[in-house]
Amino acid sequence: MKLRAFLAVCSIAAVLALAGFAGSADQKPSQALAKISPETESCIGCHEQFTPGIVADWRKSRHAVTLPADALRKPALQRRVSAQSVPPQLGGVVVGCYECHSLNLARHKDAFDHNGFRIQVVVSPNDCSTCHPVEATQYGDTKKAHAIKNLMDNPVYHTLVSTITGIKKFEKGKISSQAPSDKTLHETCLGCHGTLVEAKGLRKVNTAMGELEVPKLTNWPNQGVGRMNPDGSIGACSACHPRHSFSIEIARKPHTCGQCHLEPDVPAYNVYKESKHGNIYESKKHTWNFSSVPWVVGKDFSAPTCATCHNSLVTSPSGEVIAERTHNFSDRLWVRIFGLPYAHPQPKSGNTTIIRNADGLPLPTTFTNIPASSYLIDKAEQDKRFAKMKGVCTSCHTTAWTMGHFAKLDNTIQETNAMTLTATQILVEAWKRGVEDKKNPFDETIEQLWLRHWLFYGNSIRYASAMSGAPDYAAFKNGWWELLLNTTAMKDTLDYKTMLKKGRK
Amino acid sequence: MKLRAFLAVCSIAAVLALAGFAGSADQKPSQALAKISPETESCIGCHEQFTPGIVADWRKSRHAVTLPADALRKPALQRRVSAQSVPPQLGGVVVGCYECHSLNLARHKDAFDHNGFRIQVVVSPNDCSTCHPVEATQYGDTKKAHAIKNLMDNPVYHTLVSTITGIKKFEKGKISSQAPSDKTLHETCLGCHGTLVEAKGLRKVNTAMGELEVPKLTNWPNQGVGRMNPDGSIGACSACHPRHSFSIEIARKPHTCGQCHLEPDVPAYNVYKESKHGNIYESKKHTWNFSSVPWVVGKDFSAPTCATCHNSLVTSPSGEVIAERTHNFSDRLWVRIFGLPYAHPQPKSGNTTIIRNADGLPLPTTFTNIPASSYLIDKAEQDKRFAKMKGVCTSCHTTAWTMGHFAKLDNTIQETNAMTLTATQILVEAWKRGVEDKKNPFDETIEQLWLRHWLFYGNSIRYASAMSGAPDYAAFKNGWWELLLNTTAMKDTLDYKTMLKKGRK
Amino acid sequence: MKLRAFLAVCSIAAVLALAGFAGSADQKPSQALAKISPETESCIGCHEQFTPGIVADWRKSRHAVTLPADALRKPALQRRVSAQSVPPQLGGVVVGCYECHSLNLARHKDAFDHNGFRIQVVVSPNDCSTCHPVEATQYGDTKKAHAIKNLMDNPVYHTLVSTITGIKKFEKGKISSQAPSDKTLHETCLGCHGTLVEAKGLRKVNTAMGELEVPKLTNWPNQGVGRMNPDGSIGACSACHPRHSFSIEIARKPHTCGQCHLEPDVPAYNVYKESKHGNIYESKKHTWNFSSVPWVVGKDFSAPTCATCHNSLVTSPSGEVIAERTHNFSDRLWVRIFGLPYAHPQPKSGNTTIIRNADGLPLPTTFTNIPASSYLIDKAEQDKRFAKMKGVCTSCHTTAWTMGHFAKLDNTIQETNAMTLTATQILVEAWKRGVEDKKNPFDETIEQLWLRHWLFYGNSIRYASAMSGAPDYAAFKNGWWELLLNTTAMKDTLDYKTMLKKGRK
Repeated sequence: MKLRAFLAVCSIAAVLALAGFAGSADQKPSQALAKISPETESCIGCHEQFTPGIVADWRKSRHAVTLPADALRKPALQRRVSAQSVPPQLGGVVVGCYECHSLNLARHKDAFDHNGFRIQVVVSPNDCSTCHPVEATQYGDTKKAHAIKNLMDNPVYHTLVSTITGIKKFEKGKISSQAPSDKTLHETCLGCHGTLVEAKGLRKVNTAMGELEVPKLTNWPNQGVGRMNPDGSIGACSACHPRHSFSIEIARKPHTCGQCHLEPDVPAYNVYKESKHGNIYESKKHTWNFSSVPWVVGKDFSAPTCATCHNSLVTSPSGEVIAERTHNFSDRLWVRIFGLPYAHPQPKSGNTTIIRNADGLPLPTTFTNIPASSYLIDKAEQDKRFAKMKGVCTSCHTTAWTMGHFAKLDNTIQETNAMTLTATQILVEAWKRGVEDKKNPFDETIEQLWLRHWLFYGNSIRYASAMSGAPDYAAFKNGWWELLLNTTAMKDTLDYKTMLKKGRK
Repeated sequence: MKLRAFLAVCSIAAVLALAGFAGSADQKPSQALAKISPETESCIGCHEQFTPGIVADWRKSRHAVTLPADALRKPALQRRVSAQSVPPQLGGVVVGCYECHSLNLARHKDAFDHNGFRIQVVVSPNDCSTCHPVEATQYGDTKKAHAIKNLMDNPVYHTLVSTITGIKKFEKGKISSQAPSDKTLHETCLGCHGTLVEAKGLRKVNTAMGELEVPKLTNWPNQGVGRMNPDGSIGACSACHPRHSFSIEIARKPHTCGQCHLEPDVPAYNVYKESKHGNIYESKKHTWNFSSVPWVVGKDFSAPTCATCHNSLVTSPSGEVIAERTHNFSDRLWVRIFGLPYAHPQPKSGNTTIIRNADGLPLPTTFTNIPASSYLIDKAEQDKRFAKMKGVCTSCHTTAWTMGHFAKLDNTIQETNAMTLTATQILVEAWKRGVEDKKNPFDETIEQLWLRHWLFYGNSIRYASAMSGAPDYAAFKNGWWELLLNTTAMKDTLDYKTMLKKGRK
Repeated sequence: MKLRAFLAVCSIAAVLALAGFAGSADQKPSQALAKISPETESCIGCHEQFTPGIVADWRKSRHAVTLPADALRKPALQRRVSAQSVPPQLGGVVVGCYECHSLNLARHKDAFDHNGFRIQVVVSPNDCSTCHPVEATQYGDTKKAHAIKNLMDNPVYHTLVSTITGIKKFEKGKISSQAPSDKTLHETCLGCHGTLVEAKGLRKVNTAMGELEVPKLTNWPNQGVGRMNPDGSIGACSACHPRHSFSIEIARKPHTCGQCHLEPDVPAYNVYKESKHGNIYESKKHTWNFSSVPWVVGKDFSAPTCATCHNSLVTSPSGEVIAERTHNFSDRLWVRIFGLPYAHPQPKSGNTTIIRNADGLPLPTTFTNIPASSYLIDKAEQDKRFAKMKGVCTSCHTTAWTMGHFAKLDNTIQETNAMTLTATQILVEAWKRGVEDKKNPFDETIEQLWLRHWLFYGNSIRYASAMSGAPDYAAFKNGWWELLLNTTAMKDTLDYKTMLKKGRK
C-alpha cells in the first residue's frame, strides 16, 4: 500500500516535471502509443540508420503522434486540419514517411521505385492539401505562390535580375555582362522565390547504403516560396514549416519570415527586431506558448510576432475570435509598402505579370506614380483588410492609439513616394541629357543609385513606419539619411556626367 | 492520514515544479489573493473584453499582486519602491488600472470622463514618482529626459534634423529641401527622443464598444525617452519598462536599450552582441534570473547586460553592494564617447542647450576640439564616476585587467578624435576654397561625408573599444576601414570640386 | 516510517525538478561533494570576496565538480579529456584555481608570488594540454594558432593593416598616414588574431585588497585565437571556452564563433543566422542539449551549429560515430572560401607565411588566380575532407540533396573568382595608365574598391552559398548587387582619373 502510494506520487511528480519541459516544446502527444503504418515502419527501419536526423525530427513532430481521424474530431477553433474527411487508409495511422511521400504518385514526375516502395521525393502543397485543403487553396492565390513567374516572367524585373547576377567582363576599357547561370540564380533570387524543380529521369548516386538510383532533379534542393514542383503544383510548405517537424512553433517565430524578408530590400525582420514588439518578444518569449491552437492573446503571448498580425487564428482568453487563420499573406494588408517603385494598393491577383500600367509596362505604377488601378484592390477592399489588421492591434491598444499609428504610416507612404519621384526625375533628366542610356535601366551609375533609392531606402522607411518603432531604420540606417546622401550622389553624378559629355564635344 | 500525506506531497511537488517555471518568469506573487480596488475591477470588466492583451499583461505583472504597503516594508536592498510612504488609499490595494490612470488629475490636460470615471491617458514619470520618487528625480536630471529640447532647440542639431528629414525636390537641375513634417519627425528622430504630446480637447472615435469621446492627443502614440507629457512632466518610464507589465526583466535585457542605442550612430547594442559579454549573455541567459532585487553577480547572472554596468543595484553573493541603483544614466560615465563631433567629458547638466563653446556654439567642443570645459564635468568628478564603473568590472576582472582595458579606450578616444580633426580640416579647406557653402553644414557632399566620419565611424570605434571586444566594429564594420575609405572619398571630392570650380572660370 | 517515506518522496521530487533545471544548464555534477585542494580553497577565500563573479562562474563549471581521475575512467565516446593519465597531484582534486594557475611555472614569464603562492596569470593551451593534449596539439597546427604571424609577418597583409589603422593627416592638400599604435592594433585586427602578451617585470596596482605587485603584461587583456603567451605557447582556449566556466555549451553556440567570423569580411555568423539551420536553431534551441558528449544528432539537436559541422564529436542515436571530434578547424574543409584574393584549396600548413605564389608573393594565388599549389592541399586530401563534411550533412539530408548543394558552391566559387579577376583587371589597368600607384596597393580609391570587391562581396557570396540558404547575402546584402555597383564604381573612377590625368597634361 505504502509502496503503491509512493510510486503514485513519484509518477505525479514526474508528470509535473515533464509538463514543465513539454510546455516549451512544440508538441503534446495525445496518444500513448500512436499507430505507425507498416510502410512507414519500413522507411524508419533503414533511415533511422542512414539519415537519423530526419527520423528524430519527425518523431518529435505532431504528425508522428496524431491520427488524422482524431484530428478531424477536434472542436472548430482547435482544429489544425481543414479537411472534412481524409482517405480511409490515412485516418487510422500517424502521418509518417510513406503517408506523405506516396501521395498522388501519378502526378509526380519525381516518383521512383525505392527498395520495394514507389515514392516521390518532393512532397508538394498539393499533397499537403489532402489534410490541409483550405491552407493550400489560400496559399495558391498569393504572390508568394507565384514568386518565380512574378520575377522571371516580368521583363523589367528579369532585366534587373540578369544585370545583377551576370558575370561582368572588363575588356578594352569597357564592362560587359553575361547571362546569369542557373546555379547563381538558384543561390540568389530564386533561393527565396523558388526554383523550377523538374525530374529528368533517374541517376545513380553513391550513398552510405551503396549505389542507389534516384530521380535527377533540376535546381534541387530548394524550399523557395514559389517553387515549381515535379507534380505541377507551386509553392513549398517547408519554406515556413521546416522540415520533418512541420512545426507551427517555427512558423510563428519571426526568424522564419526573416530568412527572406530582411534588409536591405525587405527589412521586415530587421525592423521587427528593433521595434518594441520585437524587444518584448526577445525578452519574454521563453514564457510564451508558440504551439497552441487557437493562439490566445495575453495568455500564449504578450506581443505579436509576424504570424500574429498576418496569419494566425488569434482569440481572446474568453475564446472570441480576434482574427481568422489565413495562409493568404495579403489578407490583412491593404497597401503594398514594397515599392515598385512606389508603394501602392495590394494587387488583386497573386499573379502580378498580368498588370499593365498606363505606359503598358507590367508594373503597378508608372514612373510618375500613376497606379494601375484596375489591377489593384479598390477602396472598399482596402478598408476591409485594414479593419482585419486593426482588429489585431486593438486587442492590446486603444483605437486612438491604433489610428494614430496608421496615420503616420499614411504620411510616410506619401513622403517616401515623393522622394522616389524626385529620384526618378533626376534619372529621367540623365536619360534626356543622354548621359545614361535607358535601354537597360539598371546598368549605369545613376540608374543604380535610383534603384537603391526606392528598393532599399524607401522600403526601409515604410517598413519601419509600419511596425510601431524602429525609428533607426527610418532615420539613419537605410532611412532618410541615406535618401539625403543618395539624392546628393545622384545630383553630383548627373552634373559630372553632363560636364564629361560637354567636355567630349 | 495517508491521503493527507499524499496530498501534502503532491502540493510540494507542484510547488517545486512551479518554482522551476516561475524562475524563468518575471514575477513571484507573494500574496495568494491580492486586493484589487473596485474602480480597477470596473476597468477590467470592460477591458478584459475589449483590450484583453493589456489586461493579461498587467495580470502577469508584479503590480497586479503587490500591495504598496507590503512593498514599503521590504528590507532596504530588496526594495523596489523608493517612497517613504504612499497615499493611504493606495497602500492597501494592488497597483491597478485606476490607481495609476487617476493620479494627479488636476495636472493632466489629458484627463477625461470615461464611463463614469475621470482618468488620464498618459501615465507620466510624475505619476510613477508617487511610489518611485528617487528614480523619477534621478531620471529627470538626465540627457534622456531632455532629449527633445537637446535635439530640437539646439540650432546646429535642428539644421541637421531638417536637412535629413525634409522632402527634397528636383527642379531646373537643382535640389531644394522642404521643412520636415511633424509625422516624419515623430517617425524618425523623435521616435527615440520623444514627442510633444498635448491634449487638444476631445474627439470621437469608433471603437468595438461603440463611439467614445477621448482626448485628442498630438504626436501620439510615443514612448520616447524625453517625451513631453500632457501633465507638464518630461520622460516616459514605458520606454524601458513596457507596457502594462512594467517589467524589470525587460529593462535589464539589452534588447530594450538596443531599440535606440544601435548602429550606425550609437552602436552600443550591436557592439555588445559581438562582445564576449554579449556572447555569454546569448548563450547562458536562459539560466539567469533577471528579476531579483538586488541583482547578485555570479548568482543571478554570469556576464553583464547594459543595466548591470549602467543602472542596476548589484551586490555580491554575500550581500555587499557593488554598485548602487541609479536612473541617472551618466552616473557611472566619465567620458561621452558619442562625439559631437569629438568625444568629451560628460556634460554637467542633462540640458545641453545651455552649453557654449569657444566659438559661441551650443556644442561641447569646437571644430578644432577645444572642449567647452566649464559646462563639462571636471577631473575629480570624472574620477569618481570612473571608480563606480571600475567597481562593477572588478567584480569579475582583476584591477590590472580592468586598467588595461580602459587604457585602450583612452587611446582610442585620442586617435578617433584625431581622425575627426583630419576630416574637419578637409571640410574647412572645402569651405575656404568655396567649393562647398558652410551656411548649411550638412547639405553638400563633403559635409555629409564629414558627418558620417564622426557620427558613424568615430562613434562605432569608441563603442567597440568601450565594451571589451567587438573588434570587427573597430576594424571593418563602420570602423578604421571606413575611416580610410571616407578620408579618401573626402579628399577625392575636394579635388574634383576644386577642378570643377577652376574649369568654370 | 511515514515521515521517512515523505522525505524520500520530497527528495525525489526535488531531484526531478532540479533535473529539469540542470537540463538547460551546462553541467551535471556527478559527485555530491567534490574535493577542492587546500591551495584552491585559499584562492577562493579571498577571491570570493574580491572577484565574486569569477568564483561563481567556476563553481557552476564542470571543472569545479570533476576529479580528473574520474574523467579518465569514462568510456571513450563520453570522454572530455584526451590525456592517458594526469600528474598524481591533479587526479584526486577538482580542477580549481590553483590547479591551472600553477602549472608549468618554470616556463611562465608571468609567474609571480601572490599572497604566499607562486602562480601565473595567463593559463595557456600548453597548460590545458595537461588534461587535453589531443585538442592542444590539433589546435596548434591551425591557421588560428598562427593568426598573429599569418597577418603581421606577411608583408602584403601587414601593409593592409597599417594602411587601415594608421592615423591620417591632411596637410597642404595631401593625405599622409602614420604607423598604427599598438593599442589600436590590439583593439582592431589583433583583437581577434591575438596579441603578443609579454611579461615585463612587476608593477604595483591599487586594488580593493590594497596595493598588490603583479606582472606587467603587454597588450593585455586579450583572448585572440593566436595569442602569443608569456610561456611561449600560442593560442587562447578562452577565446571559445570563456572564462572560468570553460563551457562546452558556449563553444557549441554560434554566438561564440560569431565574435570574429562576421560581416563584412567573414560573414559566417550572419549567413548562418539567415539560413534555415540558423532559423531552426533560434526557434528550437531551448529544447536542445548543448552539453552532452558525444553530441547526438536528432536527440540533442535538430539542426547544426558551427561546432556540429566543423568540430564536435557527433554520433547517431544508436551510437555510431558520424564525425570525430577535432580542434583543427580545417579538418573538414577542403576549400578556403575566404579569398586572398581568390578562393583556393586549404593551405597545407597553419603557418601561411611560408607560401610563395608564382609571383614570389606570400599569397595562396597570384593576381590572375594561379594557385600556389605546392603549398595547398591536393585533390586526394580535398576529397578526404569533403567526405567528412558530407558525412555530417547526410545524417539529415539525402546524398542527392547534399551533392546538389555543394554543386552550387563549386559554381559560386568559380563565378566569384571570375568577378574578382574582372576587378583585378580594372585595377591593373589603373596602374598601367599611371592613375594610381601600385607601391601601396591599398591607399587609393580604385585599390580600396578592389579590396572591398573580394574581401567583402566575393567572400559574402561564398559564405552564403556554403551554408544552405541566406540568399540575401548572395543577392543584395554584400552580394551580387554590390559586385555590380562596385564594378560600375571602379570603372567610373578609372575613367574619371584617366580624364583628370589627361586634363593635367
